Amino acid sequence: MSLINKEVSAFSVQAFQDNAFHTVNKEDLLGKWSVFFFYPADFTFVCPTELEDLQNNYEKFKAINCEIYSVSCDTHFVHKAWHDHSERISKLEYPMLADPTHTLARDFEVLIEEAGQAERGTFIINPEGKIVAYEVNSGNVGRNADELLRKVEACQFVHEHGDEVCPAKWKPGEKTLKPTLDLVGAL
Amino acid sequence: MSLINKEVSAFSVQAFQDNAFHTVNKEDLLGKWSVFFFYPADFTFVCPTELEDLQNNYEKFKAINCEIYSVSCDTHFVHKAWHDHSERISKLEYPMLADPTHTLARDFEVLIEEAGQAERGTFIINPEGKIVAYEVNSGNVGRNADELLRKVEACQFVHEHGDEVCPAKWKPGEKTLKPTLDLVGAL
Amino acid sequence: MSLINKEVSAFSVQAFQDNAFHTVNKEDLLGKWSVFFFYPADFTFVCPTELEDLQNNYEKFKAINCEIYSVSCDTHFVHKAWHDHSERISKLEYPMLADPTHTLARDFEVLIEEAGQAERGTFIINPEGKIVAYEVNSGNVGRNADELLRKVEACQFVHEHGDEVCPAKWKPGEKTLKPTLDLVGAL
Amino acid sequence: MSLINKEVSAFSVQAFQDNAFHTVNKEDLLGKWSVFFFYPADFTFVCPTELEDLQNNYEKFKAINCEIYSVSCDTHFVHKAWHDHSERISKLEYPMLADPTHTLARDFEVLIEEAGQAERGTFIINPEGKIVAYEVNSGNVGRNADELLRKVEACQFVHEHGDEVCPAKWKPGEKTLKPTLDLVGAL
Amino acid sequence: MSLINKEVSAFSVQAFQDNAFHTVNKEDLLGKWSVFFFYPADFTFVCPTELEDLQNNYEKFKAINCEIYSVSCDTHFVHKAWHDHSERISKLEYPMLADPTHTLARDFEVLIEEAGQAERGTFIINPEGKIVAYEVNSGNVGRNADELLRKVEACQFVHEHGDEVCPAKWKPGEKTLKPTLDLVGAL
Amino acid sequence: MSLINKEVSAFSVQAFQDNAFHTVNKEDLLGKWSVFFFYPADFTFVCPTELEDLQNNYEKFKAINCEIYSVSCDTHFVHKAWHDHSERISKLEYPMLADPTHTLARDFEVLIEEAGQAERGTFIINPEGKIVAYEVNSGNVGRNADELLRKVEACQFVHEHGDEVCPAKWKPGEKTLKPTLDLVGAL
Amino acid sequence: MSLINKEVSAFSVQAFQDNAFHTVNKEDLLGKWSVFFFYPADFTFVCPTELEDLQNNYEKFKAINCEIYSVSCDTHFVHKAWHDHSERISKLEYPMLADPTHTLARDFEVLIEEAGQAERGTFIINPEGKIVAYEVNSGNVGRNADELLRKVEACQFVHEHGDEVCPAKWKPGEKTLKPTLDLVGAL
Amino acid sequence: MSLINKEVSAFSVQAFQDNAFHTVNKEDLLGKWSVFFFYPADFTFVCPTELEDLQNNYEKFKAINCEIYSVSCDTHFVHKAWHDHSERISKLEYPMLADPTHTLARDFEVLIEEAGQAERGTFIINPEGKIVAYEVNSGNVGRNADELLRKVEACQFVHEHGDEVCPAKWKPGEKTLKPTLDLVGAL
Amino acid sequence: MSLINKEVSAFSVQAFQDNAFHTVNKEDLLGKWSVFFFYPADFTFVCPTELEDLQNNYEKFKAINCEIYSVSCDTHFVHKAWHDHSERISKLEYPMLADPTHTLARDFEVLIEEAGQAERGTFIINPEGKIVAYEVNSGNVGRNADELLRKVEACQFVHEHGDEVCPAKWKPGEKTLKPTLDLVGAL
Amino acid sequence: MSLINKEVSAFSVQAFQDNAFHTVNKEDLLGKWSVFFFYPADFTFVCPTELEDLQNNYEKFKAINCEIYSVSCDTHFVHKAWHDHSERISKLEYPMLADPTHTLARDFEVLIEEAGQAERGTFIINPEGKIVAYEVNSGNVGRNADELLRKVEACQFVHEHGDEVCPAKWKPGEKTLKPTLDLVGAL
Repeated sequence: MSLINKEVSAFSVQAFQDNAFHTVNKEDLLGKWSVFFFYPADFTFVCPTELEDLQNNYEKFKAINCEIYSVSCDTHFVHKAWHDHSERISKLEYPMLADPTHTLARDFEVLIEEAGQAERGTFIINPEGKIVAYEVNSGNVGRNADELLRKVEACQFVHEHGDEVCPAKWKPGEKTLKPTLDLVGAL
Repeated sequence: MSLINKEVSAFSVQAFQDNAFHTVNKEDLLGKWSVFFFYPADFTFVCPTELEDLQNNYEKFKAINCEIYSVSCDTHFVHKAWHDHSERISKLEYPMLADPTHTLARDFEVLIEEAGQAERGTFIINPEGKIVAYEVNSGNVGRNADELLRKVEACQFVHEHGDEVCPAKWKPGEKTLKPTLDLVGAL
Repeated sequence: MSLINKEVSAFSVQAFQDNAFHTVNKEDLLGKWSVFFFYPADFTFVCPTELEDLQNNYEKFKAINCEIYSVSCDTHFVHKAWHDHSERISKLEYPMLADPTHTLARDFEVLIEEAGQAERGTFIINPEGKIVAYEVNSGNVGRNADELLRKVEACQFVHEHGDEVCPAKWKPGEKTLKPTLDLVGAL
Repeated sequence: MSLINKEVSAFSVQAFQDNAFHTVNKEDLLGKWSVFFFYPADFTFVCPTELEDLQNNYEKFKAINCEIYSVSCDTHFVHKAWHDHSERISKLEYPMLADPTHTLARDFEVLIEEAGQAERGTFIINPEGKIVAYEVNSGNVGRNADELLRKVEACQFVHEHGDEVCPAKWKPGEKTLKPTLDLVGAL
Repeated sequence: MSLINKEVSAFSVQAFQDNAFHTVNKEDLLGKWSVFFFYPADFTFVCPTELEDLQNNYEKFKAINCEIYSVSCDTHFVHKAWHDHSERISKLEYPMLADPTHTLARDFEVLIEEAGQAERGTFIINPEGKIVAYEVNSGNVGRNADELLRKVEACQFVHEHGDEVCPAKWKPGEKTLKPTLDLVGAL
Repeated sequence: MSLINKEVSAFSVQAFQDNAFHTVNKEDLLGKWSVFFFYPADFTFVCPTELEDLQNNYEKFKAINCEIYSVSCDTHFVHKAWHDHSERISKLEYPMLADPTHTLARDFEVLIEEAGQAERGTFIINPEGKIVAYEVNSGNVGRNADELLRKVEACQFVHEHGDEVCPAKWKPGEKTLKPTLDLVGAL
Repeated sequence: MSLINKEVSAFSVQAFQDNAFHTVNKEDLLGKWSVFFFYPADFTFVCPTELEDLQNNYEKFKAINCEIYSVSCDTHFVHKAWHDHSERISKLEYPMLADPTHTLARDFEVLIEEAGQAERGTFIINPEGKIVAYEVNSGNVGRNADELLRKVEACQFVHEHGDEVCPAKWKPGEKTLKPTLDLVGAL
Repeated sequence: MSLINKEVSAFSVQAFQDNAFHTVNKEDLLGKWSVFFFYPADFTFVCPTELEDLQNNYEKFKAINCEIYSVSCDTHFVHKAWHDHSERISKLEYPMLADPTHTLARDFEVLIEEAGQAERGTFIINPEGKIVAYEVNSGNVGRNADELLRKVEACQFVHEHGDEVCPAKWKPGEKTLKPTLDLVGAL
Repeated sequence: MSLINKEVSAFSVQAFQDNAFHTVNKEDLLGKWSVFFFYPADFTFVCPTELEDLQNNYEKFKAINCEIYSVSCDTHFVHKAWHDHSERISKLEYPMLADPTHTLARDFEVLIEEAGQAERGTFIINPEGKIVAYEVNSGNVGRNADELLRKVEACQFVHEHGDEVCPAKWKPGEKTLKPTLDLVGAL
Repeated sequence: MSLINKEVSAFSVQAFQDNAFHTVNKEDLLGKWSVFFFYPADFTFVCPTELEDLQNNYEKFKAINCEIYSVSCDTHFVHKAWHDHSERISKLEYPMLADPTHTLARDFEVLIEEAGQAERGTFIINPEGKIVAYEVNSGNVGRNADELLRKVEACQFVHEHGDEVCPAKWKPGEKTLKPTLDLVGAL
């Protein structure tokens, strides 16, 4: 079975944000949209460019009431150290979640057991705490924050307009479809 | 565990293409790149726009030695009928796979048991028959063939250049990264 | 054990009839007679002649308070499309049930697992929702609506006259038998 | 799963025919067509009319190389006694199989456990010993030897002409269908 | 363990007696003595002589309040037919029980599984429904109603006189033994 | 299942005979006829009369090549003591088997677990070591050696003349029956 | 684990004493001291000398409120017969328990399964029904009633004087030991 | 089951003797007689008197080729210390076995689990390594070396004279019994 | 998992102290600090030097409210004897626990099964009865009471000052660390 | 059971040393002495002081052929980053092992499951790859490299001189003990 409609399991992890440590748990996801953005490890190569790409779009995500959570299997101590020492990472404003127990990576089924690291998995979670879209790339191919934003917007649209659907490449403002009997076989 | 690096299981299904029926099986995937493009059902709404979007890019996929396979749980008889009667679908040139036994939908973990249909799942398969990237959207959000093409190209690049990685949003021609010790913490 | 006297399991499926979609479930069977008429797949060969044969007798079935339900493992979208595009099928007035989850085919034990299709099975169901007669042919031999009608009538007769039985080839109006001790060994 | 294509299990039973007892076993079925005609009990009511109906058509079945085997859970002693004392039964020329161990009734899934009798089940068996069509009525509704003959003929036709199928009500001499791509959706 | 003192299990079977069918069940055994007299099959060889032998003594059994029940795995229809057509059997006045489900034969442990018939077993049952004596012969050796009568009488005697025992070959009127300490080792 | 045709299990027990102890085992049964005559306990009441009754007929059993073995759960020491001190028992010439381990009583299913004694069970064993007839009375009813002799003779007759059967009460010299088709229903 | 402190299981057996039969059960043991004296079989060799040795000391056991129970796997009928016929055994005044069901022999773990007899086991049981001392010899070595008496007396002494212990070979009247810290290592 | 005839399990333990440590194992038992003399603990109260009692008889045991092994759950270090510091124990010449792993105590079924100590169990072992007699007293009753010697001698006698048995209290030189048929019931 | 934070299981053992025996159980540990000091066996070699080393520091442990418990698998009788006879051991003032049942050695996971002895394990237990530090050496390497004292003091410090930690080699009076965000990566 | 003598399981992990990454596996431990020094997490508080303390003694460990391996559940990327950015850590010359899969922490039983971190466990491993001594402190108490060095030296001494043992606080050059019988109880 796919992970679509899977409700995120209860969790409680340490996060680093705004030069402080705090706890993030499942309840924090309810009532707003979230993106869980897994990457293999701090202090590595592709990751910073992806995380920077996300930061560059962070305002747009905030504007549509969607929080970004980056996640790796490193500790929050390491997140702080990376933030302190990397120029790119020091710009990040969204919370960086620490998953040294592999709890989140297992729950979202992206743990690479033999490495103790996570695959590059991105998950869009709706305000009820359920996964509505996701994407997983093998470790050395970078993701695209623009396409992620488009998908969050489409998910939000169909979440609000239950009787309409978004065609391929739909972006806010474009036409959507209302499924009716007459459309069967007519498209 | 994620599906990354999962080898596609042996299968043999009916396909409709070029106004003919033929069999497609796992061996057909080996030695070239493939995209498995699942959608819920023939004669429905979002699906035609996605399938048309793919067809519009079909030449580009062919040019990089990547075959497109659309898959639904309908029979090959239904694929032919849809092709006969829908203007959009009649343009499709790539093979349409029939999965009435749910074999493929189960193997790629996109079967919706209670509906007997597949989620909108896209899978990039390398010439060794292993999944290297995938994406699953809930049923009413359309996909984007341009981003799919970008990801196939990035996957091909790292497949050929084992020691380089593609940063966020990378497209052919852009710079890649060579992971070295000096880059640790330097990006 | 045979399926005689088996009570149909609870179900709820999509049906196409009168150019509309609606839901049919077990409760709809109670209080009247029903025929479940399984066939392998929409848009195929023997099936249309059988379904047309049934339609030609539909008035007679309605006259004796017996509903006809055709069933295949195709979706209701496909039923509509077939109805739209096939001259024979466009005449059908009885409900066409969609069984893409294979629920009905499994419950009546006619699912061909390796094809994801149903055998040509016909089931007569009494007003208590129990099977009283059935027939299964391998996939390429057509059925006979006249004989089916005769059997429904005979089933109805013995359902109402518990102490009489119908001899071979009995049709309404012909003599029946009352089993009494004197008849033992006398026929 | 249905019984279509089920191979009859090995068996060895006593039979009464031509005023003699002999053994019938699975090997006797191979290389010719067979009908297994189960009925509840000797010396009962509906049964004789059905068995007489079969006898009246016995020559036609023989003409198409199809043997008839009637079967009940009574012993061969009882078959002989019935044959001796019933006018109708005394005409029977085909073998009457004795199944007091319930072996056949169980193998064909028509045993009524709580009665120690068989349902009225008819089975057409091909020369490879496999069931290709069957029919089961509840105990008090008689069968129709004419329709049975039609079905054996249709089964024989498709057995010999693997690429043709018999439409509804087909009888020898009438047109059959050759399934081709062009017929998809065209009937 | 032996069947001595085994309580007969609840049962309900069809019986033929006085040219009528009626039901016999366990409750009918309580309060009087019973003999269950199993034999292999109706319309066979040794059986009629045994059943006639019993009938010749039936008045004596009735006189001591002991009912006789003959039992075979044939149906009650067959019992009637045998009664109608056999001179010897037509004399029988005691109830003939039908056990086509093998229920009684199994409960008294005389079923021959590979034949679907009963061994020649005779069981004496006391008014509490418990077996107090029994005898089983292989299929081709006839029993002796005189000895059976003697045993029923002896069983009745010790049932009524709990403190006396019947020596070898005892018949009513002969001396019995009262077990006392002095008799230990003195006989 | 009954014990008819059960092969006696391998055993080895102590026996008392001719004022000596010796071992009896299964091999001693092969090639001749045997009667196993179980009784509850030495030094008790009914038993001596039964054992004496057997002794009185011992010559007749020997004459037809049939050995008598009496069996109780007492030791061979006790058998000797009983033989020494009881007038009736001192006459016994046949072997008295000791079964303090309950091995034989269990194998012939006559052990009364809660008493550590055997039921009054008599078993006729053929030269192949298989049980062909048996009888069990509750503890206080004596058996009849004459009837036992008759049954051994009938068993021997059908053992030698496989195609004839003994009717009720048959004794050597009387007519037997040859089962043929014509006899079915004719007796 | 040893049997020391094992509570005797509930039991009820026949006993022979004073030329009468009566029942002995566990309750009879409570409130007084008991010796259970198992031996292999009545009418055998070593046993009578042991039982006579016990009888010679019976008055002494009675004097200290200790009952003697001899036990073998023979029946009470056999005990009486032995008592009647053996000069030595006829002197016995204590109860002889009958254990033909092997219940006691199993509970005290002295049953020799392959012989259906008991080992020569002696058990001293306190007024609470628990074993406090025991001894088992292989079958052909006789026991010593004097030593048994000494042990019962020692057991009684420590039962009454919980803070004193009996040194080797202690007899009533001799010094006992009071365990104190100063004695540690001082003896 | 009793421990009579139980073969001692393989073992290897530390022993203290002659002011030295050495290993004792099962092989050391073969070919001679042995006594295993368990006691609860070194440096306690009853034990020294028992061990001294044994030492006083050690020469007699040696004279009949029987070794004495005392055993407690203490270590060999403790045995040495006790030997060094206790006047009584310092006299001991036989090997003192150390069983801190509880291996021997478990094998002879004398371990008191809740104390980590052994019951006062004495075991006579024959030259084949099998137990032929044993005795267990609860913790505070001392044993008797004289009686032990008598039992070893009786065991040796019957071991050498297989056809004779020792009556109660037998000592070397006294009469034994030869079991013959004539003795049954004669003692 | 490590034993850190494991709560000591309930136990009750004999102890020797001040020339007396008394019981020590889990409740005695609560409310104060404890050291459990396991060693292989009394009357051995390394052990006395370790136990003396501990005694030399006993006053310092008492001063910081920490009790010392030495533990071996020997009995309390042996502890007393060792204390009586060894110059070094006679000085010991802390309680010596006896573990002949191996209960404590198993609970602290230091039992050497094949020797019935304990490893040289030292455990620091806090006033809540939980292990906070421990150390295990193989059998022939001695421990160091000074380092043990340092560790107890450090454990007590962090137990009282939950927000401070002790750096390497910390001793009372030296600086500790307060973990704050600023210290991350700064040490 | 303790971890003493446990052989380290096969492993293969990434290490950081001399500004390079390389692999360390079990084979690297064989033939020399090793210390595995686990600590909770990089970039934390107590850890750096402990790691510095070890580094200060690194020459002494090297001099006695003992390698030091620090281990945490962080990746080798994080080890490099910490080495780059922390003054104390930058001095470290010994290999820092990365255990993000928790393989080593589990094998040495120091994983804190709920934190994904290791306890402060130190393990001395001999040239055969077996643990000979270890120590675990709860997370906020620092260790002592001097005591660790003393213990490695003592372990090496007894490894080379199998017949001598090291008393408490032993250091190279001091007297050791040769265990002999005379020393039992003499120390």
